[in-house]
Amino acid sequence: MAYWQSRGLRGSTLEEMVNMTNERYMEHGLACIEKIPTPIKPIKMGKEKGTISLAYFEKKGSVDYIGVVQGIPVCFDAKETSKDNFPLKNIHEHQIDYMRAFQKQEGIAFIVVYFTNHELFYLLPFDVIEVYWDKSQNGGRKSIPMSAFDERLKIRGKSGYLVHYLEALSAYLAINTES
Amino acid sequence: MAYWQSRGLRGSTLEEMVNMTNERYMEHGLACIEKIPTPIKPIKMGKEKGTISLAYFEKKGSVDYIGVVQGIPVCFDAKETSKDNFPLKNIHEHQIDYMRAFQKQEGIAFIVVYFTNHELFYLLPFDVIEVYWDKSQNGGRKSIPMSAFDERLKIRGKSGYLVHYLEALSAYLAINTES
Repeated sequence: MAYWQSRGLRGSTLEEMVNMTNERYMEHGLACIEKIPTPIKPIKMGKEKGTISLAYFEKKGSVDYIGVVQGIPVCFDAKETSKDNFPLKNIHEHQIDYMRAFQKQEGIAFIVVYFTNHELFYLLPFDVIEVYWDKSQNGGRKSIPMSAFDERLKIRGKSGYLVHYLEALSAYLAINTES
Repeated sequence: MAYWQSRGLRGSTLEEMVNMTNERYMEHGLACIEKIPTPIKPIKMGKEKGTISLAYFEKKGSVDYIGVVQGIPVCFDAKETSKDNFPLKNIHEHQIDYMRAFQKQEGIAFIVVYFTNHELFYLLPFDVIEVYWDKSQNGGRKSIPMSAFDERLKIRGKSGYLVHYLEALSAYLAINTES
């Protein structure tokens, strides 16, 4: 059961909140974001139609969400932590590789981080992640401190959008256009 | 077995060819395109680590591929037909809805169509699909004739890219910028 939990159930509330937000974005024509299913390979079909009696988890997936927001390609993951920092072990190396490739193609990659003890959500841009990741690979600290989270990229719930990350994305784009 | 075939195996050669092309695009920094796994919900874990002993197919997925090509958000499906036209029943209504939403967000949606009897591949833009789809909903023909496929959007294999659809995509963008 431990294995199953680590795969599927942990963080499902955050996932549900993000999914509901995405549904509303879609309904209101604000974004078209797809939840990427966990890659599972079916091996044997069950007797009942549509069921599978043997399957296994395939290679690790890339990120949780991919899509487009008003012409901007975006991909992101949603992660939560009960700590006062964001441990880098929450991110897999293949996810870093994927986000790096996505950004190289001029897409925007980020992580929605939920600090459960503080009930705070932030948009953490890949640029920031990359700096800490690369340092950690060279013996640096293995987590991103809360102080590295930009207050302007705080995500607020708003008028039915539970995790209104588009607002933070828009702030991020504004900051980046300035500089 | 028939059910299983209709889900997983049919068209796997085309899928494999597109996947290999995408891997090369990724390696060469030309595009970052993700194959979306078939959504499967695991219910019961198997005794062996990483295996599932009961699962079922979830709601229909959106499209097969999503990603970004040099700043352009793209999504597409790969479909083959042995006919001399492309039957619209190869596309599900939820896929049309998804591609419509994706285009509304200024992304580019299309289908890579493989005419197996002719060994020809085409990029079929969503604009064309939409016209035929909408007509078919009003009693019009239920397929897209080969004559509606733009010769300029023919997909050729080239220097290791088995289904080099980026070339056709680039032609499509050039045509659309002209007009």
